[in-house]
Parts: sequence; C-alpha cells; structure tokens
Amino acid sequence: MYLFNSDYLEGAHPLIMQALVDTNFTQTPGYGTDRFCREAAEKILAACQSPNSFVHFLVGGTQANMTVISAFLRPWEGVISADTGHINVHETGAVESTGHKVLALTGKHGKISAAQVDACVTAHAEDSDREHTIKPAMVYISQPTELGTLYSLAELTDISEVCRKHGLLLFVDGARLAYALACPENDVTLKDLARLTDAFYIGGTKCGALFGEAVVIRTPELSRHFRYMIKQKGGMLAKGRLLGIQFGTLFTDGLYEKVGAYGIRMADRIRTALLENGYELFAQSPTNQLFPIFSARQLEALSKEFSFAIWQKLDDGAAVRICTSWATEEKAVDSLIIMLRELK
Amino acid sequence: MYLFNSDYLEGAHPLIMQALVDTNFTQTPGYGTDRFCREAAEKILAACQSPNSFVHFLVGGTQANMTVISAFLRPWEGVISADTGHINVHETGAVESTGHKVLALTGKHGKISAAQVDACVTAHAEDSDREHTIKPAMVYISQPTELGTLYSLAELTDISEVCRKHGLLLFVDGARLAYALACPENDVTLKDLARLTDAFYIGGTKCGALFGEAVVIRTPELSRHFRYMIKQKGGMLAKGRLLGIQFGTLFTDGLYEKVGAYGIRMADRIRTALLENGYELFAQSPTNQLFPIFSARQLEALSKEFSFAIWQKLDDGAAVRICTSWATEEKAVDSLIIMLRELK
Amino acid sequence: MYLFNSDYLEGAHPLIMQALVDTNFTQTPGYGTDRFCREAAEKILAACQSPNSFVHFLVGGTQANMTVISAFLRPWEGVISADTGHINVHETGAVESTGHKVLALTGKHGKISAAQVDACVTAHAEDSDREHTIKPAMVYISQPTELGTLYSLAELTDISEVCRKHGLLLFVDGARLAYALACPENDVTLKDLARLTDAFYIGGTKCGALFGEAVVIRTPELSRHFRYMIKQKGGMLAKGRLLGIQFGTLFTDGLYEKVGAYGIRMADRIRTALLENGYELFAQSPTNQLFPIFSARQLEALSKEFSFAIWQKLDDGAAVRICTSWATEEKAVDSLIIMLRELK
Amino acid sequence: MYLFNSDYLEGAHPLIMQALVDTNFTQTPGYGTDRFCREAAEKILAACQSPNSFVHFLVGGTQANMTVISAFLRPWEGVISADTGHINVHETGAVESTGHKVLALTGKHGKISAAQVDACVTAHAEDSDREHTIKPAMVYISQPTELGTLYSLAELTDISEVCRKHGLLLFVDGARLAYALACPENDVTLKDLARLTDAFYIGGTKCGALFGEAVVIRTPELSRHFRYMIKQKGGMLAKGRLLGIQFGTLFTDGLYEKVGAYGIRMADRIRTALLENGYELFAQSPTNQLFPIFSARQLEALSKEFSFAIWQKLDDGAAVRICTSWATEEKAVDSLIIMLRELK
Repeated sequence: MYLFNSDYLEGAHPLIMQALVDTNFTQTPGYGTDRFCREAAEKILAACQSPNSFVHFLVGGTQANMTVISAFLRPWEGVISADTGHINVHETGAVESTGHKVLALTGKHGKISAAQVDACVTAHAEDSDREHTIKPAMVYISQPTELGTLYSLAELTDISEVCRKHGLLLFVDGARLAYALACPENDVTLKDLARLTDAFYIGGTKCGALFGEAVVIRTPELSRHFRYMIKQKGGMLAKGRLLGIQFGTLFTDGLYEKVGAYGIRMADRIRTALLENGYELFAQSPTNQLFPIFSARQLEALSKEFSFAIWQKLDDGAAVRICTSWATEEKAVDSLIIMLRELK
Repeated sequence: MYLFNSDYLEGAHPLIMQALVDTNFTQTPGYGTDRFCREAAEKILAACQSPNSFVHFLVGGTQANMTVISAFLRPWEGVISADTGHINVHETGAVESTGHKVLALTGKHGKISAAQVDACVTAHAEDSDREHTIKPAMVYISQPTELGTLYSLAELTDISEVCRKHGLLLFVDGARLAYALACPENDVTLKDLARLTDAFYIGGTKCGALFGEAVVIRTPELSRHFRYMIKQKGGMLAKGRLLGIQFGTLFTDGLYEKVGAYGIRMADRIRTALLENGYELFAQSPTNQLFPIFSARQLEALSKEFSFAIWQKLDDGAAVRICTSWATEEKAVDSLIIMLRELK
Repeated sequence: MYLFNSDYLEGAHPLIMQALVDTNFTQTPGYGTDRFCREAAEKILAACQSPNSFVHFLVGGTQANMTVISAFLRPWEGVISADTGHINVHETGAVESTGHKVLALTGKHGKISAAQVDACVTAHAEDSDREHTIKPAMVYISQPTELGTLYSLAELTDISEVCRKHGLLLFVDGARLAYALACPENDVTLKDLARLTDAFYIGGTKCGALFGEAVVIRTPELSRHFRYMIKQKGGMLAKGRLLGIQFGTLFTDGLYEKVGAYGIRMADRIRTALLENGYELFAQSPTNQLFPIFSARQLEALSKEFSFAIWQKLDDGAAVRICTSWATEEKAVDSLIIMLRELK
Repeated sequence: MYLFNSDYLEGAHPLIMQALVDTNFTQTPGYGTDRFCREAAEKILAACQSPNSFVHFLVGGTQANMTVISAFLRPWEGVISADTGHINVHETGAVESTGHKVLALTGKHGKISAAQVDACVTAHAEDSDREHTIKPAMVYISQPTELGTLYSLAELTDISEVCRKHGLLLFVDGARLAYALACPENDVTLKDLARLTDAFYIGGTKCGALFGEAVVIRTPELSRHFRYMIKQKGGMLAKGRLLGIQFGTLFTDGLYEKVGAYGIRMADRIRTALLENGYELFAQSPTNQLFPIFSARQLEALSKEFSFAIWQKLDDGAAVRICTSWATEEKAVDSLIIMLRELK
C-alpha cells in the first residue's frame, strides 16, 4: 500500500537528517538564540533579497498562523480570509481562541481578490455604527492555496496595494511554498513575498523538514516583541537549533528549490496521466495537490494499492486528493499511472 | 568552553537519533494517529502500570502546561501553583493568555503543601461574595521543582487527597521527570503519578529526546476532547510520529531510566566536589540542577572554561545553576571538579 | 423631528420609573442578591411555568449573549448562528473575543432551520480529521430575528429536537421578545421557550425597561457557576436591585404583554399604511420592525419630519428600518401615515 | 436594621433620579452618541481642566477596569497592581480572562510605591531570557485604595514618573473617587489625575449614581478605538444617555463634591466616636470606609441593629468594614455612635 494522502507522511530529506546527526553533540544555547538559527535566518533573508527583514522559526503551520495573527492584531480587529482558508476551517478555531474573528470571504478556486478585500473593508468602514462590527485589519492568504491554486504576481500586487491603501496587514501562509516556487505557472518569488507582504512563512514541514516554518516579518515594529508571543503561545522550542539546522540545510545549495521541483515533477506526471486518460478534475491545481474524481469502481480498485485523502464524496465515487512531495517514490508514481490507464 | 547552563544544549540520545533515521522513509498518517505513537503510548502506560489511562504527545513543556490547564478548567476557574512555578514565572503568561488566573502560593524550596492548598480553597469558598473571586480548581506542581527539589510520596499523597476532597484536579509537570525518578532520595514512581494525579507529563525535551512531552491523563472524561485542544493551541505536530518514535525509544529497554541515572550520576559527582570543597549551595537539590554560590573571583576563573546560568547576582559573585543531563561529558565534569578544588 | 430609528430611544415605561423612584432609599445587599431580584425571578418563572429554571439578570444584550455562550461552551466548541445573527455581525466579535468561533449558516429571512443545523453537525462529525475543526455545540437564534421574523413553534421544536439529538445546547436571544409574544402570528410562548431551550433571555432594554435582560436557564448544571461568569465578564451590577425592580414591574399585572402589544399595534398601523399605499417591503416582518423601501424623493421628504435607520442603500433611495416600541407616540404614527399617503 | 455594609445599598441621589424622570421621554440616538453624554463629557473635562482628554462612560467598575486594561495592553504585556488591588482579588479573574497577567506587588496599606514599580520593571528587563516572562506595561492603582487609603500627590507623581521613564501606562481606578476628593488629607485633584495618568475613572456607582463610571483617557491614540472595546466587552449601554444624564447631573453645581463631602462627614463622625471610645482600627483610612475591630460581644450587640461587612474574622470578634455614602442616614449614624459608646 502506497500513501498519497499528504505531503507529511515521511520524515525529512536525507540531507536534513544528516545535518541533525552531524550536529547532535554540538552545544548551543536554547530557544533559537544559537548560531544555526542565526545563519539560517541570514540565508533566508539573502534568498528573499530582503536583508532588513526578520526571521522567526516556529514548529508548525497552525502555530505560525495563530501566533502571527494574534501578535499583530488588536482585540477589536479581525482577519480576512477565503472561506476555504486553513485558518477558517482546519485549525479548530485557533485564531478565534486568541480572540479574533475570521472574516470569511467566498473564495474562487480557493482565492480571494483585491476587489473583495476592498469591498469588505469599505462595508465595515461605511457603517454608521462602526464600533458594532469587527474592524478588518489583516488579510490572510495561502500560496499555494488549500486547493493548490496560485496567486499571480499581479493578483498579489493588487491585494498588497489594497491592504496598504486601507492600512491592513498582509500575511501569506506558505506551508507548501516550495511547491509554488517550483511551479512553471508561478511568477511570485520569495523577493516578491518579502516586498509585498508584512509577513509570510516559508513552510518546512511539508517541504523537506521534519517540522518547522520560517516566518519572515518585514518591519522591526512587527518583529520587536514577536518572541514573547512565540513563547506565550507555546511555540518556543527549547532546542531551537533544530529549526536553524533544518532551515540552514534547506537554504544551502538550493535544497528548498530541489525539494519543490521534485514534488512538482511527480505531480506533473500524475496530472498528465489523469488528463490523458480522461479523468475529470474536481479542482485545477498546478502544484503538488491533485483533485481527480474517481468512480466507485475506480476508487475500489485503486484503494487496493494506494491511499488518498477523500476530498468530497460524490454520488458515484469521490473527489480525492493526491499529494506528492520531495519524498514521493517515483516507482509508486509509475505504478499509479499504469493503474490509472487500466481503469479508464 | 563547556556549557553547563541547562539540560537542552545538545540534540538527542544517539538511540533516538538512530530510530529517527531508521524510520525516516516509513510512511505513516499524520497528527499522532500512527502506529509509533500507539506503541509508545502502550509502553508508557505499561511503565505507569495504568493501562486505562490515556497518552497524548506534545512538543514542549509550556505547550503541555498551557494545553492541559486550559483544556481542563472552566473560564471562572484558576490553577494553584508555587510562586516559583514555571507557569507562574517563565511562560510569558501562557496560562493567563488562555484566560485563567494562576493563584500563586509562597513555596518553600519550590514546593507547596497540602495544608496550603487546603487553606487557599477554604479561603475562597468561605467568602460570602464567592463569585467575586476565582474558583480554585486545579493544583499544578513540578516533579522535580524549578529548584530541583522533590515531593515525597507522602507529600504528593497529601496533596492528592486534599485535591480530591475539594474536587480539584492535580497536574504534575514532569519536564525533568527522568532525573527525579533516578534520584535515590525519590520515592514517587510513575505508577504513583498515574494513580495520584489527574494528569502529569513525562518530559522528553530535557531527558534524551530532541523534543516532546508525553501527557498522561487518567480519565476518559478529561482525555476525550484533548486532541481538539492540542490542535487549537498549535501543538499538533503534522509528523506526530516523531514523538511516537522518540518516546517509543525512551521506553524501550529502560532508556528513560538510563538517561536519568546518567544525569544524576554526573550531578552527584559535582555536588560532592562542591560540598567537599566547602562551597555554599543557594538551594538544596538532589536532582540534576545544582545551585552553588561562587565568589566574583571564582566565577571569573570558572567562566574561562565553563558556562553556567546566573541564578541570582550577589554582592560578591552569584548563585549559579549547573545542569547535568544524559549528554553531559564526563571529561568536562572531571575538569570542572579539578577547577573547583583549585579555586577553594 | 420624530425618531423611528430604534426601540431604545427613550427611557423606561412610567411604571418602571415610578418603581425605581419609590424604592430609591430602600437598602438592599448588592449584586443581585436582594429581594427585588428574587421576587422578579419568581414572577418570571411563573410566567414561564417553569418553576425549576433559574433566572439571572444582565444589563444588556451583547453582554447576555457573550456571557451565556462563553459560560456554556468548552474552548474547542463553537456556536451555530444565522449569518445575519446579532452575535455574528453586530457585537464587534464579542463571542470570538471569548475564544469561540461563530459557525454562520446562511439564513432565510434571518432564520435557520433544523435541517441546516443537522447538516452542519453531521459535516463536522463525519470529518475523519475531526479534531481539526471546531465542534458545534450550541445553536443561537433570535426570537424575533434581526429581520423581525418569527420562528414558529413547529420550527423551534424541530431545532430543539435536532439539538437534543446531537447534544447541542439551544439558546434564544429575546432582546425584542415582548414584540414577538404580542404578535398574532406568533405561536411560541414563554413556556415553550423554557421547555424547548437550554437558555433564553427576556429582553428588557427594548421592551420597557431602562436596561436589562433576564436570562432563563433550564438546568442547575448550566446555572451553577453562572454568577462567576457574570462577574468575570463585567456584567454584575453592584446595584443589582435595579434589574429586579424593573423586571418585577414588567412581570406584574401583565406589563410585559402590554408593552409588546402597544408596540405591535403601532407597527401594524404603519405596516397597513405602507401596504395600502403600495410601498414595497424589503423584508416581511410581523413584529415591531418594518423595512419599507422609499425612493430618494420619498426619503428626502420624510426625513424632514422623521428619522429612520438606513438598512440598505439602493439605486433610488433606500430600504429603511422603522421601529416602534412601548414609547412610540401615536400622534407621530398618525403624522407618518398621513405623509406616507401623500408621498405615493 | 440599618446597613453600613457598602456604598451601593440604595438607588441614586434624588437629583439624579429627578433628571432621569425629567428626560424619560426625550428621544436620543443610542450607544452614548447623544447630547447628554456629550455635555456630561464636556463638564467632566472642564472639571479636570483637561479639554483635550476623552471621556467614555461605562456601567460598572470591573467592566471599566477590564475594558481599559485589555484595550491598552498587547498580549504579552501585564499590569502591575497591589496584591490587595480590586483587579487582583475581587473581579473573578476578569483581567486574566482577557489574556493578561496581573503582576501583584505586596502593598503597604493597600498602596504600592514608585520604587516597587521600578524594581519590578527592572527585574523583568534584566532577565537574559526576557521573552520568558511577561512584560510589565501598565500600573493599576486605586484612589482611594481597597483599604480606604490615599496616594499623596507626591506619591502619585513618583509613580507617574517611573511609568513614563519605563514606558508604562498609568491607570487609576476611582470607584470611590468622590470620597477621596472630599477628604481633607487628600491633595490629588481631578486635574492632577488627568495630568499624571494615562487613564483614570471617576466612579458613579458608589458616588451618587444608579450606576456608571466615567473613564477619562489622556491621548487620542489610546481613545481612538476604545468604543470598539466597550462594545466587544459587553459594556455599551443601548440607552447610553442614562450615563450622560447621571454624570451631567453629578458634574452640575458641584454635586459630585457634595456627595463626597457628605459621605466623608458621616465617616468622620463615626471614626471620631470609634477613636474616642478606644476602639482599635484594623486599617487606617481617612475616607468613607472604616475598619474597626469589634469583640464578639460588641459584634453581637451591634448586629441587632446594624449590619457591617465582615473584613476578617479574629479570635475574639472580627475586623468589620463600615461604609458611609451620600445616602447614609444621619440618624443611623447618631444611633451607631450612641451604641459604640455604650459597648465600651
């Protein structure tokens, strides 16, 4: 049985495991104040061409989202998100647990537009009893989105501009960022993210690391007390070095790019096979998540050899999610493609 | 320069690193639903002789404390702690950030007594305007404490009984539990903790693991929705297996005991040298933390070769903390002991 | 200029003012432990034919909603509401500020159905990664709704049953309950509310009192620590007697019914005039809120003599809200009706 | 039986009741946007000689404390208070329920000193792992304190200066401010409070009003979004006018001064009688709260005619609190004094 359920089914890229083993007995101070973290941060900022930004390492995605959002907002402020956004659906109300409302806008293919943000802010500002509604103060988007889709540079620029017009912060969740960056369709670089957002994070957990997300914050004002929040929200790893070592490795010799490129190549092979064999796609994703629709018969046959995440049950079968990653075995992809052909 | 600052200066015990490397490409489902977590939980419950308890793995200590306390308490309830308790001082108000007051009692050598708990509860209950004060509903203690001291079985039993008398929950923070268990002075076993508390955690971060704490919960009522809280509070590791693999290794062939015993042996050697050479101790700790007082002259000399945590500055020198662990190099201990002799 | 903007434009019903003046120098203990509160609670429970329920008095509606919801829910639980629900839109995120997500369902005329609740709960329960989403644990509805519409007894019974089937609590916001009870279309009594809900509140602020809402809670489990929450959330009035005196007066000699009936009679006169003269209604409300659409010309003319709340701007004019109450001057209604006729 | 338990045993000063009756049918917009609130704010700012400050009206003291503190602090910040401070003891953890730790300093006669604040801030700043502890960001004191004592102008000035030196906000709880202002020992004026604090509130509930506290905020930055917080925390009264009418009356023709002066005169008479007859005082208070110690015999005799709050039980009898106010009957004071004489 081979699992295509997600991109966090295995451990870490072998180079990362090696780095952890190599440094295992090196003594360092705790809580991310060590030289591995410092060096990793420098490499990340170099990759972002944003030397004056700030890097903070966190353990996981929900933790990163919750910590950033609650650190940046005041109590009466809310965060705008697509209705399908991770913070709105799949984080057990973590943002609300810190006191903030998620203002959900109806997404299109998992994305929201600058015009929607503008309308939302305007609607809240126009209200004569404005203190009776939450004040929108941040926009949260993901690159790629929950549905694997991508914001274009033009779209991201528009959203950034509307945020700056209204004084909103822009925060981009990059849990799967390596797979966006490696996508031929993508025209948003790390430099663009560092330039157009107030904060974004570079996902490690799904992109080659055992765990870890690197939050990049643009201004000293937003970064100054961020470590207090990491600690308070339970995200300050005693052996913070583990994050520094992993991200240092990911940002050495282009490993982060390689990790993304491999995952995308595996996804491309499966997508091509799906399309060539006439399978319908529930959502169009150019990244490492694919959402094919399988009939009950197909699903039953496939499930003998492969496991997928059920995305949505349908009358006949289901839309499933197939996820590739840096760890996907090419042989398993070969077998899947053969089976996809046979079942059509 | 050798660091004695804390017990989280290195990576993990080599057997744990090996286990992580060995399982690196094994596919598992995420979020702690994998077989490694299941097996580790079984081993832990067997060690606790408490087959009906429940184990949840979290990444770090503050996260474990905050998640347990906020999961168990209702909004109007508070948690009793020693004034020196980790939750009261060194967690950046994490418990308060979840809405709960920490009711701090003046500790003696870092410990509180059943009589103090009883008096605190009675004081709150007697108040005719009782709704105007927080309702004490949980007792939080650490084994060993922040000052390295130990609760005896008699003391723990008394606290447990007073908690049950008043309907309070008892939660024990075992961030350094391995070093308590390995201590000749200690008479509190894992079985006792499982029996006398409502929840406690077995520390991994400071006891041989890269990171991780195993929370043991006694009743299904308290455990039932705990995974929701782990997720909401940002502590649900995507690759939850990492915790299962580590704790599975720690609870195989007595590794957890060995880790503790080694750390205690190193501490004992240093303590003996300190006492034999007439150094004063700021606090009496039988575990892996020592608090010697060094004069300015001694401190200056020692600091050329060793690093310690400054615990409290004094007129002449300071009380420092020396921490040993599974990773402490015996050669460094030898050198330290020689120098302690020379400086007297 | 006569204001029809809302039902909280004046002070209190003269009988209430008289009661406050009459008791002004009577000494009572504070915080709602006085005999006025006790007697008012008894009268309310008699009116509800629910002698074993519990009454708590709060100052205002948002306070009542926030306090009830945060007292009843555990941190991982959320509350289902119509998207137009007061808690979802007009309380500045008060519920989220206590840590809970509002799960908004698309309402129809401001109402949600038992089937929607059922589907929402089922969707959350079915999810294999159920800990990743909020657990729905309460349904919040208003009677009458934000749009002045009413739940029928059949609809309320269905919602109550689906709640009990799934273990959800049902909470009804009755900020304008007097106007629902007085409506000929209404078939939901106080007794039904006490029987079918876990908690509901009887609005005073908009129904004759200076301020105040009487929360009725069905079970001792839910009521037991509620006073702690009232205090913690800032809602415990030092001179709690003020609430007891007001509700005692409202529930003596049928004053609450009279207040409602008068407001409804005024609304009926205006509604009839609107319909007879061919005005379109933006929403159909049988209660004390009317939502006529006026052209720009009509609006300009009316605004010289009357003030309304602008509900939604339209290309030509706007949908406005006209609100009547116990205090509406019949002469103002006469003038308005004349003008409505003239402007057609 | 005459009650001396507290200063909120009766309704409101007759002039306030009259004003409420007189304006009962005047129509105003809601939520404190009416002319009564505007005019009352102007009168208050004139009395404070601080025309550029901002006034917000809230319903009660706990609500005012909680709303101010949570509006001003960021999540990682805490508020310094005397251990006896109302927010630390008698508000059911309201401040903690908004996520903030109360850093309690040991008070002397209910007061803390500038030196203590300085030491607390320095201790937190010096810590090398400063992110592991809460950042003190505000000082909360009461004038008069919980024990009826007063900060002198020199003491308040010192605290204000140390706050400004360290960038802390200073907030003064004036629930009983009228009785401080009327005290011959007092040298802190409203103008001083407006000048030396960032916010303070002028108590209404205990000083002649039915309810209500007037929060005075010094800077536009702190005031700008305060109404959002009032709404979110459940404190925005629909008929906000009630607060405007009451405070407008209190600040017309010196009523607030008269209310305070009367309460102080009654307290002075009782204090003189206590001292002349050799009763011991548990705490020295120059304001409207007295804390005599009565033997069991005295207490039993007194309790047949009078009721007091039991402050602390003693081996023989108790320390009680006697509270006077604007409403205290002089005849009851006469009777009490006679009895005090007889019982000695």
